[in-house]
Amino acid sequence: MAGTASTYDKALSDFRELDRKIRRYYEAVSLLSWDMRTGAPRKGLDVRSETVGMLSSEAFQLATSPLAGELLEQLEEKEAFNQLGEIDRKLVLESRKNYDRSVKIPPKLYEEYVVLTSQSESAWEEARKNNDFAAFQGYLDRVIGYTNQFIDLWGPKETRYDTLLDEYEPDMTVAELDGIFSSLRGELVPLAAAIAASPNKPSRSFLEGHFDREKQKEFSRYMLGQLGFDFEAGRIDESAHPFQTTINLKDVRITTRYLADDLTSALFGTIHEAGHALYEQNVSPELAGTSLCSGTSMGIHESQSRFWENTIGRSRPFWQRYYGELQGRFPDQLRISAEDFYRSQNTVQPSLIRIEADELTYNLHIIIRYEIEKMIFNEGAKAADLPAIWNEKYREYLGLTPPTDAVGVMQDVHWSAGLFGYFPSYSLGNMYAAQLSDTMERELPQTWELVAKGELAPIREWMTQRVHQYGKLRTPKEIILGATGKPLDSSHLVKYLRDKYTDIYKL
Amino acid sequence: MAGTASTYDKALSDFRELDRKIRRYYEAVSLLSWDMRTGAPRKGLDVRSETVGMLSSEAFQLATSPLAGELLEQLEEKEAFNQLGEIDRKLVLESRKNYDRSVKIPPKLYEEYVVLTSQSESAWEEARKNNDFAAFQGYLDRVIGYTNQFIDLWGPKETRYDTLLDEYEPDMTVAELDGIFSSLRGELVPLAAAIAASPNKPSRSFLEGHFDREKQKEFSRYMLGQLGFDFEAGRIDESAHPFQTTINLKDVRITTRYLADDLTSALFGTIHEAGHALYEQNVSPELAGTSLCSGTSMGIHESQSRFWENTIGRSRPFWQRYYGELQGRFPDQLRISAEDFYRSQNTVQPSLIRIEADELTYNLHIIIRYEIEKMIFNEGAKAADLPAIWNEKYREYLGLTPPTDAVGVMQDVHWSAGLFGYFPSYSLGNMYAAQLSDTMERELPQTWELVAKGELAPIREWMTQRVHQYGKLRTPKEIILGATGKPLDSSHLVKYLRDKYTDIYKL
Repeated sequence: MAGTASTYDKALSDFRELDRKIRRYYEAVSLLSWDMRTGAPRKGLDVRSETVGMLSSEAFQLATSPLAGELLEQLEEKEAFNQLGEIDRKLVLESRKNYDRSVKIPPKLYEEYVVLTSQSESAWEEARKNNDFAAFQGYLDRVIGYTNQFIDLWGPKETRYDTLLDEYEPDMTVAELDGIFSSLRGELVPLAAAIAASPNKPSRSFLEGHFDREKQKEFSRYMLGQLGFDFEAGRIDESAHPFQTTINLKDVRITTRYLADDLTSALFGTIHEAGHALYEQNVSPELAGTSLCSGTSMGIHESQSRFWENTIGRSRPFWQRYYGELQGRFPDQLRISAEDFYRSQNTVQPSLIRIEADELTYNLHIIIRYEIEKMIFNEGAKAADLPAIWNEKYREYLGLTPPTDAVGVMQDVHWSAGLFGYFPSYSLGNMYAAQLSDTMERELPQTWELVAKGELAPIREWMTQRVHQYGKLRTPKEIILGATGKPLDSSHLVKYLRDKYTDIYKL
Repeated sequence: MAGTASTYDKALSDFRELDRKIRRYYEAVSLLSWDMRTGAPRKGLDVRSETVGMLSSEAFQLATSPLAGELLEQLEEKEAFNQLGEIDRKLVLESRKNYDRSVKIPPKLYEEYVVLTSQSESAWEEARKNNDFAAFQGYLDRVIGYTNQFIDLWGPKETRYDTLLDEYEPDMTVAELDGIFSSLRGELVPLAAAIAASPNKPSRSFLEGHFDREKQKEFSRYMLGQLGFDFEAGRIDESAHPFQTTINLKDVRITTRYLADDLTSALFGTIHEAGHALYEQNVSPELAGTSLCSGTSMGIHESQSRFWENTIGRSRPFWQRYYGELQGRFPDQLRISAEDFYRSQNTVQPSLIRIEADELTYNLHIIIRYEIEKMIFNEGAKAADLPAIWNEKYREYLGLTPPTDAVGVMQDVHWSAGLFGYFPSYSLGNMYAAQLSDTMERELPQTWELVAKGELAPIREWMTQRVHQYGKLRTPKEIILGATGKPLDSSHLVKYLRDKYTDIYKL
């Protein structure tokens, strides 16, 4: 039975209120979790974890409640839906997607899965330490098994792996990604080989030394100010692993880690997290307090962190402007030129470990993982098969063979935690960043002069206009098409890397 | 109809679970509030307040839900209650008290009151700034009016004001407090006058100067360690106004404020808050996660902060031990002896402002407020009457007449916020501390030798044994009787003050 106009109004206001209430729970959960990672007393952590679990579960129950289902049904009626504004429509669509995804998994199955992944992560940690893949293999097979059950419950898309991809990068498909990644791989493998063969290698030796942590801290804050991070709507703290978290639209936090023997780790870490934070701080206030008030996907989010870290932060004009500032703080250690510093931050070297990889070979690490994940879910590869597959691909794409599984197939936590379909986001981020940057250079022809002068506001504003403001109001595909006029392709990243490294390595 | 044994078991486990859930909400609320006061970004505070409000309201709704009422009724049945252990019995009694108190206030009335007190606090702030009592008077009368309605709904005890007292100090009565305060006042007024007349005044002039904030911070942390604050179950931060907050039993936080031109403000502030924290950190783990896991009353809590701040922290043996440590950090500023430092921290001087008062005259400020609060609720005094009453009492007890209402009747925030019955806690704290200390000196005859050696653990452990461990399992009266063998009286505080200041001022 169709409702009346006033039923719809009531449903809409109840629906908004429910969404807002769920967001408030997540605000609390985010802050409690942030606190656990930035200095909560050790002995209180067990109780805290339970409190986080309780509040998350309350939010989950609200989002999957019969009331949520009824309100969605009422608002999805054609007459009601047509009357909704743009934001409310999107809110209904997003909530429906999450609702269906959640209610399709029986609670008991999900609980088993949570317990399993927790055990599996511990097993992975231990197995990696002992370089004992056999001890981890059974867990991995079981995590894969549960993930396959979820795919069945959610309903497989074009391929089974598409169902997983869609969780992190909505509407991304294997068909599309196969094309993009195979052309990217085709270009990068020979380019990496040419770089490896070049005799013109940047020196990194000066990077050794002692770098006062307080001075690093002060420079990180200075840099955040330069990037346009709003300190009245965010803060920076320290944690073992850097991260960005959003408490609310005007409370966006990042962390970094200052190492006394490594100047650039915290520096680029800060710039990277600032990229995420600028995205979150600049979502349109119209979306404040709704579940649309956040980055639209992992890939687009990563495009923002990598744009600032690599495209801008590892560019020559950037260090023409800022090297003096850095050198002024570390005059005894930095006895080299701005140009040599710039080159040192752009070395390319095939390596075994993803998280230590440079911006070029990083993509090959990702493509390997993508291909293996497809084999698991679309071709039935088992955990036992993975070490051999892994090593063969590293030999083929990076010219290296891992001496142990610990630095090979077991290096990442993701699979042990059930995060399948997540890895592609990192390379998508690089490609989105390059494609956005290509358009920006045309629409803002003085881009690099601005960078060289440290006038970064117009660049940030361009990104806010094209990306940040929309939050989840637009899908990744809509964002990239709207901003650049065409769908994602890998050519801009290839061109960016080829131009940059041909120059640096004098290819 | 009486339930069966298994009904009671079910009721008990449901009741415990409900209590635990409410505590988890308060853990979140406490952390969110702590964060707001220690560095949350300014622009995110409005949303944060709403989130705190939402979570508090969820907790309140759980505590006053029909389910809570039903479970209480089941567990209060004689057969069920008799089977309960000590902790569960007390939990039922406490929950019943809070339940009744809460459900007797109609939600609409309470909402009006929350809005009123928020407006009233703002009005007070403005009126105090402009020294314009007339602008505040109407608000104060309305807050008094609502409080009177609450008294009627809760049901007046022996006198109407008793109902308010009981909220902060359970089982404390006007009859008892009148006796205690009148004898205290009778002793302190002439003692303060004798001190004022003494020519032997400690000098405070050396306390001026610049004191590096980082060094102060380091000394505060050192001092916390000496007092036995568990840094793995707590932390110290900075905030505009020092406070202690309990997130959970093993996450107890304090704050302080470091002033570059005042060495002792942060120092004694830290010791004071540490006293509160030691109480909260040392509640018995058996009470963890229940609503009994906190200090039993405002007065007993204040006894712990004041015991460490004044009885120990302003004692001669304490500075015999620690003055060298302090002087070592500020050698240029502290060119005086330990004895002179000790004396400087124990000056007595009648003054107009409560929060700046010394440990002796402080009690007179409290007695004045207590007498006025009684006049309001038991004798119908109106806001318009208060400035004259206030000034007359200050003249009589402290020998001073406030030149303005801003430094007179309007100096405290409490009344504007509806906190009537709260002030006595401060002096109760002083008296409890003195009475506990008197027993401690007899049971632990080497108390002051230990202090002089910096061996504070036995002192802390004595307090844990007699006070801390019980949390809310015992009432204030039970605590003080159990620890000292007699009910509270003012003689120990009088003796402590008389002995100490006769010596210092050579009376």
